Amino acid sequence: MTEVILALDVGTRDAAVSIAEKTGPYLDAIKIGYPLVLAAGLTIADELSAGGLPLIADFKVADIPNTSRLIAEEVFSHGFSGIICHGFVGRDSVLACVDTAHDHGGECYVVTEMSHPGAVDFFHGGIAERIAALVCETGADGIIAPATRPERTQMLRTLIGTRKILSPGVGAQGGDPSAIAGIVDGIIVGRAIYESADPAGAAQQYAQFRSLRGTNPHLPYPLRE
Amino acid sequence: MTEVILALDVGTRDAAVSIAEKTGPYLDAIKIGYPLVLAAGLTIADELSAGGLPLIADFKVADIPNTSRLIAEEVFSHGFSGIICHGFVGRDSVLACVDTAHDHGGECYVVTEMSHPGAVDFFHGGIAERIAALVCETGADGIIAPATRPERTQMLRTLIGTRKILSPGVGAQGGDPSAIAGIVDGIIVGRAIYESADPAGAAQQYAQFRSLRGTNPHLPYPLRE
Repeated sequence: MTEVILALDVGTRDAAVSIAEKTGPYLDAIKIGYPLVLAAGLTIADELSAGGLPLIADFKVADIPNTSRLIAEEVFSHGFSGIICHGFVGRDSVLACVDTAHDHGGECYVVTEMSHPGAVDFFHGGIAERIAALVCETGADGIIAPATRPERTQMLRTLIGTRKILSPGVGAQGGDPSAIAGIVDGIIVGRAIYESADPAGAAQQYAQFRSLRGTNPHLPYPLRE
Repeated sequence: MTEVILALDVGTRDAAVSIAEKTGPYLDAIKIGYPLVLAAGLTIADELSAGGLPLIADFKVADIPNTSRLIAEEVFSHGFSGIICHGFVGRDSVLACVDTAHDHGGECYVVTEMSHPGAVDFFHGGIAERIAALVCETGADGIIAPATRPERTQMLRTLIGTRKILSPGVGAQGGDPSAIAGIVDGIIVGRAIYESADPAGAAQQYAQFRSLRGTNPHLPYPLRE
């Protein structure tokens, strides 16, 4: 099935724990980023991962190899099961994150194209395709590709085979879950759940798209079970 | 003069404070990144900035505009005077950091090309040049360009005019301060100072390169005072 991943981009520890508890039954993983971690400290990850769902560090790591490795070491010492890094920084920096993740039994996802409007400035024109090739060479576990541009994500699928695709931009950024859930392995939803008056109900609504996995008729690749 | 900026990439609060105190008299600014902040918490920034030197958040921000803005807000609420973001995420994400920095009276520097070997994978072939153009369009205060490739940094100088260049990679990464200090506004030195048996003495050695500012005879731009 297509997983539902909550982008838990709230500003405080209390809000994070509260939303995670309410929505947890309808989720497959939780993703947190720097705004929450800077406000609440990295120990918020220990607290959230204790809830039992896989926790992904969306730190979009984009540093020199030595620093990227140090960041990844911090991540995997705090209960995360996965990390997101950028591909744009090149092979050695990506490998630093992939190898550190695998050393800890975790996963590494590489940003191949982002979901916001400005992403077209540099990711288009052949760069995303080259990052996808790098993902395959480095043994990364999957890519991050935009729900806001399903045609691009479908193109990237043809380049990465059975590696996973997690797709942000569903909901507030305009990505349509019915258009993307059939192409990818996980949809990432943030504000449309955590800013809802009924976060659990919103998460439950997105959970219905789990069943779309692999239903896109144009997919030219063998789906993983 | 060419500033000397310490990349204070140590792993603990105590080490950071100790090295900052010893080397402070020979420095013009201190730069810290995520490994230290994740280990010690963002309050380490309040402590270091209390020492009186400008403090730069080398977070290489590379997220969607909303998240980049939230990260920059956290930065400027903790005593930093500058932030470093990536340029390859595109115009809107860069503007989110530039505008937030300026709203707080701070500065924003944009990574135009990194210092590690893998940086050539994607920053070469015209991308760094396009990021330099974006820097000028967005009103960012300067760029980050590699001491490990002075010829590239000199080329970037011709594209950004009198905006500042801060240059990492001096010392442990192989960058020669005598080759780069005449081109840029600040050299960034990390391990060669903080891993030295005599960090103050090492910082003092690098401080001698301050006087090289603007001495590169090939510079085709008017130097700022």
